[in-house]
Amino acid sequence: MRTANIIITCPDGPWIIRSVTDFLFVHWGNISFLEEHNEDHQFFMRVQWELENFNLSSEKEFLDSFDPILKKFDMEISLDFDNNKKRLGLFCSREWHCLLDILSRQLLWELEVEIPYVASNSPDMKELVEKLGFTFYHIPTEKWSDEHEKGFLEIIRKHPTDVIWLARYMKILSHDFIEKADQKIINVHHSFLPSFVWAKPYNEAHERWVKLIWATSHYVIPELDQWPIIEQQVKRVKHSHDIDHLKLIWRECEKEVFAFAIRKHIENKLVVYKNRTIVFE
Amino acid sequence: MRTANIIITCPDGPWIIRSVTDFLFVHWGNISFLEEHNEDHQFFMRVQWELENFNLSSEKEFLDSFDPILKKFDMEISLDFDNNKKRLGLFCSREWHCLLDILSRQLLWELEVEIPYVASNSPDMKELVEKLGFTFYHIPTEKWSDEHEKGFLEIIRKHPTDVIWLARYMKILSHDFIEKADQKIINVHHSFLPSFVWAKPYNEAHERWVKLIWATSHYVIPELDQWPIIEQQVKRVKHSHDIDHLKLIWRECEKEVFAFAIRKHIENKLVVYKNRTIVFE
Amino acid sequence: MRTANIIITCPDGPWIIRSVTDFLFVHWGNISFLEEHNEDHQFFMRVQWELENFNLSSEKEFLDSFDPILKKFDMEISLDFDNNKKRLGLFCSREWHCLLDILSRQLLWELEVEIPYVASNSPDMKELVEKLGFTFYHIPTEKWSDEHEKGFLEIIRKHPTDVIWLARYMKILSHDFIEKADQKIINVHHSFLPSFVWAKPYNEAHERWVKLIWATSHYVIPELDQWPIIEQQVKRVKHSHDIDHLKLIWRECEKEVFAFAIRKHIENKLVVYKNRTIVFE
Amino acid sequence: MRTANIIITCPDGPWIIRSVTDFLFVHWGNISFLEEHNEDHQFFMRVQWELENFNLSSEKEFLDSFDPILKKFDMEISLDFDNNKKRLGLFCSREWHCLLDILSRQLLWELEVEIPYVASNSPDMKELVEKLGFTFYHIPTEKWSDEHEKGFLEIIRKHPTDVIWLARYMKILSHDFIEKADQKIINVHHSFLPSFVWAKPYNEAHERWVKLIWATSHYVIPELDQWPIIEQQVKRVKHSHDIDHLKLIWRECEKEVFAFAIRKHIENKLVVYKNRTIVFE
Repeated sequence: MRTANIIITCPDGPWIIRSVTDFLFVHWGNISFLEEHNEDHQFFMRVQWELENFNLSSEKEFLDSFDPILKKFDMEISLDFDNNKKRLGLFCSREWHCLLDILSRQLLWELEVEIPYVASNSPDMKELVEKLGFTFYHIPTEKWSDEHEKGFLEIIRKHPTDVIWLARYMKILSHDFIEKADQKIINVHHSFLPSFVWAKPYNEAHERWVKLIWATSHYVIPELDQWPIIEQQVKRVKHSHDIDHLKLIWRECEKEVFAFAIRKHIENKLVVYKNRTIVFE
Repeated sequence: MRTANIIITCPDGPWIIRSVTDFLFVHWGNISFLEEHNEDHQFFMRVQWELENFNLSSEKEFLDSFDPILKKFDMEISLDFDNNKKRLGLFCSREWHCLLDILSRQLLWELEVEIPYVASNSPDMKELVEKLGFTFYHIPTEKWSDEHEKGFLEIIRKHPTDVIWLARYMKILSHDFIEKADQKIINVHHSFLPSFVWAKPYNEAHERWVKLIWATSHYVIPELDQWPIIEQQVKRVKHSHDIDHLKLIWRECEKEVFAFAIRKHIENKLVVYKNRTIVFE
Repeated sequence: MRTANIIITCPDGPWIIRSVTDFLFVHWGNISFLEEHNEDHQFFMRVQWELENFNLSSEKEFLDSFDPILKKFDMEISLDFDNNKKRLGLFCSREWHCLLDILSRQLLWELEVEIPYVASNSPDMKELVEKLGFTFYHIPTEKWSDEHEKGFLEIIRKHPTDVIWLARYMKILSHDFIEKADQKIINVHHSFLPSFVWAKPYNEAHERWVKLIWATSHYVIPELDQWPIIEQQVKRVKHSHDIDHLKLIWRECEKEVFAFAIRKHIENKLVVYKNRTIVFE
Repeated sequence: MRTANIIITCPDGPWIIRSVTDFLFVHWGNISFLEEHNEDHQFFMRVQWELENFNLSSEKEFLDSFDPILKKFDMEISLDFDNNKKRLGLFCSREWHCLLDILSRQLLWELEVEIPYVASNSPDMKELVEKLGFTFYHIPTEKWSDEHEKGFLEIIRKHPTDVIWLARYMKILSHDFIEKADQKIINVHHSFLPSFVWAKPYNEAHERWVKLIWATSHYVIPELDQWPIIEQQVKRVKHSHDIDHLKLIWRECEKEVFAFAIRKHIENKLVVYKNRTIVFE
């Protein structure tokens, strides 16, 4: 069944749900899902409706008709009309378990996205990625530099996407890059945000015999300590696990939170508000 | 902030959400939460609104005004107007970990309910329950009998409640009793419904060295194998756990699923449809 | 550091630990890990020691010297001397998420095994498996038959392995096949053993709005309802998840329990006793 | 069956396991459980044996005979001979969910300990604790002071115990107090150690819409940021949970990690090494 969905963010106030559901009523759109949240005088809603009988036949037509409501309530929206296929770029470095997990899911038709490229500052994965049928770019770099970021920006411009996924891309992106990339960036991090931003997490976790290890997926914004959290996961460990064993378990956490974030992003179920993320069901 | 909420169940069709939100609009009720689900041509919705400014000032007034919508869409509803305090009766037998957990939560003001009585076919808990300030009834019985159920029915009639909680009440209630009790009954079971309805679960689980044990909370309906599931939980176990250790872990599962079911029931977030339960967020 | 380890199973009795640790003492083997379990008058132990200074330099030498102890206590043993690389064969059918997960782990050097072949009754994966550098056999079959099992047995004989992994191999293996294959077989099953052996688990789980779904990895023995359980895992689901969504979550469970079983098998940490499995730490 | 167990910590070296198991052999003690760990050139072992036939009939006799081994390997030991009943003191403040959970477990015969007293800087719980049959001390204090700690120390001296449990005791104990108390102290903390030592954890967690909340149980040592972790637990939360809801979920985490730590302590399965804790199975 063909559906559309929209995420709405606007200052809270009365009658927003009513106005939106009324609009869909008038245009013969039958609502199949609706979820909302209020916080800090801010209103958030995701509503999904059936396109059968809906008398606005395109994204453009919808936006034109919806414009008065959008303006009245000062809404920001994220519209997914007729489940248009997301396009996403993948960055990685020398650790490629998250990358391989995502490519496998794509090969298994679990994601239904387009992945126009994989870009890495390491050539290790080139052969495998290409064998699997994806385009691979290697941006060689001895150390991080403007020159290096330029190479990545060229790829981004050549292959327009909706989002960049950092599948264990081990460099911190500059403010300048984030601004020029001009799209959402999702990262997986070996920390339990907002804390545990450790340089050598495996060693420090082992040093203290922590009982759980963790990973976090998040949107990338310029302020490092303010990254909006999408998902967090932990796994149980024991004092008897050596560092290599911890690393393997850490990988599982990282793959899980990354895959979760990707699925939610594809389904248009994430909305960032300041340094926080709402995850709709 | 004072709120009301309603759960609506009716045959699916267009414009139900619209009609309900419109009704609340007309009566100045600002919606603070809305969640819905469709399945099998059946529509389920829970909507919560603020009572400040709402111009229907009582449950009765609401029901009178809402009646045309209710009739038009052939709705069944569960209304919680101004968070009226739930009243619940507690039944137990010789295993009283779930009972003590619930009474503790009540003493800690976690539940905000009224518990007019605790009834048991064993006198073991009498002293402790009374010390904690609750009314205790002992319905002595050598074996299960009509006579015995009659004793429980008298208590139920003497203390009208919204729901009966079976906190490890180890008898199967008769069809006749369920009908006469004429209210929702919530049970916790040492099985992983709809399977594992084992007579001696500890022994059988130990016999096969299962890796997880479990519990289920559910509504009681006459058909044993069709109990609508409210919540399920598992805990990890090992081959080295003996039966006594398994029992202790089992208790933790039972307490968790029971407490979860009770909280959701109090918040008016459960709706039964045939042999299934929707659990709203 | 080079190590060896042995799993010992024998009738319980005094002085077994003492005899084994004494033997290792006499031969200059320093113990780095020891775990044991008693049950049903049966004794189970896994002990690991360092090979540096150990004065028995091969599996054969060890077995010759250890023989008197083995005979005295009527032991069955599983010896892993100097972490000899395991060889394993992979069977699959049309669902290949578990297969792709295992091959990915092998490509990421997480497993350190040899995978001499992948065999399937479906040709779907041939191209991808070969691209990834593995040998692929397609045993075509319209329906299950002796002829078909013969094809698989030929592959098994051509490529001797320590274990066969059924990565969602959707046929039930005959007693005759299991006997002739003459090696351990590990399977992943979409049930919560020993129950929930449903024909259409996705539909039945959805039908009852269960709150958790599950998977089990186990050894294959001829008696279907007695499969020794290696690992079980559950994931939380909601009434709002449709069947396709349940299937995706089910896949995650299946991959996890399968990967867990494989790692434990490679590390020589599993021992089957009747219809049960001990999983050493 | 009567058993004894011992935890041994000593510098790592060859033949320690052998010496201990040999000692038990010579004295007719049949080993029923053995677990060990090596790290940082340090050796840790817990061994449990049957007392039937064991020819050392008391703790003192054991210690006398074992002394040469103890001295040879420079061992520190924790001996639990014939499951001698632990005695423990309970401190709490105004939040008493952990206290009530522990007292309930004691009333349910889950713990088999002696609880000679409950001490609190708040009188809130006095009536309930005494009704439940425990001795209650109120040490009134406007603010934390030496005077106040003196009151607690008097209680500790009057009722000798093996361990003090801080069931949400919301004061930081002074170095002086910890030294004078001269026994193990176990605490439950609303942080995810070693990070998240937040002053207002509920608010900060809510502020960032974290996806998991947590608690940690740990031994108390004077260095705040070095507390040895015993157990950690997390629970899943959503952006839609308000602060009151987060607090309720936090309580569940706190009760779980506290009960876990207490059980492990009672079973003599915890050993602290520097700022870390080994938790034996």
